[in-house]
Amino acid sequence: MLRQASTTLSIRAKRRGLHEITRDVRQFVNDSGIRDGLLSLFCRHTSASLLIQENAAPAARRDLEAYFEGIAPEGADYEHVDEGPDVMPALLRAALTATQLSIPVKDACPLLGTWQGVFLFEHRRNTPGREVALHLIGE
Amino acid sequence: MLRQASTTLSIRAKRRGLHEITRDVRQFVNDSGIRDGLLSLFCRHTSASLLIQENAAPAARRDLEAYFEGIAPEGADYEHVDEGPDVMPALLRAALTATQLSIPVKDACPLLGTWQGVFLFEHRRNTPGREVALHLIGE
Amino acid sequence: MLRQASTTLSIRAKRRGLHEITRDVRQFVNDSGIRDGLLSLFCRHTSASLLIQENAAPAARRDLEAYFEGIAPEGADYEHVDEGPDVMPALLRAALTATQLSIPVKDACPLLGTWQGVFLFEHRRNTPGREVALHLIGE
Repeated sequence: MLRQASTTLSIRAKRRGLHEITRDVRQFVNDSGIRDGLLSLFCRHTSASLLIQENAAPAARRDLEAYFEGIAPEGADYEHVDEGPDVMPALLRAALTATQLSIPVKDACPLLGTWQGVFLFEHRRNTPGREVALHLIGE
Repeated sequence: MLRQASTTLSIRAKRRGLHEITRDVRQFVNDSGIRDGLLSLFCRHTSASLLIQENAAPAARRDLEAYFEGIAPEGADYEHVDEGPDVMPALLRAALTATQLSIPVKDACPLLGTWQGVFLFEHRRNTPGREVALHLIGE
Repeated sequence: MLRQASTTLSIRAKRRGLHEITRDVRQFVNDSGIRDGLLSLFCRHTSASLLIQENAAPAARRDLEAYFEGIAPEGADYEHVDEGPDVMPALLRAALTATQLSIPVKDACPLLGTWQGVFLFEHRRNTPGREVALHLIGE
């Protein structure tokens, strides 16, 4: 019998960069009692995003962070600057990555590959906490 | 009892850039009678895309449009030019943003954050209308 | 009556670049017996990704491949280099495209537009095969 479960993951304020949330996501799936289905994550912000990436090498994470800082840099000629110099770069880096992710679930586990972790990508310098909505449908 | 609803949003020809469709998307959810579930949007084109972004500051939208025009510019050394100089930049800008978005729905509302709007991102200069397929599953 | 189907698409080792998998995806939908619903694809790797793009013009595919090679080049100043010079560019190109895609299904067909194909985007030079998890929910 198909059914669904949902929750909101509240994430305390973090420094700019990648923060792994795989454990929280797995916990939600496990607690739901749903063993097979589709898990969806949705970042409720325009200046943070989601990314599935390397879960083992911290150097890869640092390279990813540096890359997005370079490709959408602070101090470029932006019009939208009145909320701070880090806002427009944050919106651009969010636009280039994912606001939402859906992952099939089997035997109560998201079907992540061996080296895949789920990350919140914080793009601003100082933020209050962030919210990621989680939804699971299955049986 | 879980059920699903679907429709196709037909969007009249637009100028290049970001066009908010949040109201149409909310209307579909509201009309469906489904209060809790998962909403999915799918852009049926390779030269337009979807983006969740800032719904309040027009300057942010202009910066976003200018950024993607800069990062995938017209007039670069493309091989695929026979359908017009704006085609290849359009395909690249679409590849860098989203063809598809899924958003959890609660109490008959998509769980968008306060500053999040859903936009069609038109990348070509002259197009006929565009189609965005909407799908909602829930109860 | 809603139900779901799932499988894993095993893709043999490919050269770097875009490889169309639309036919395999359509076959899975067709074999499932589910006529209306939501199809999701999930790439179980950090150095390959998914992309919906032009299915007709090989020149467009070559331009897309060249663009992503240029925007996240080999030989830049990366810290994470011990697994090979092509690893960090692969992770960046995957971060800029999609790990996951969801497509509404109607009358047993994914609602792809006329010119849309589904592609595995291989970012590494030498890999073993790749796995794409497929999930379909509907009726």
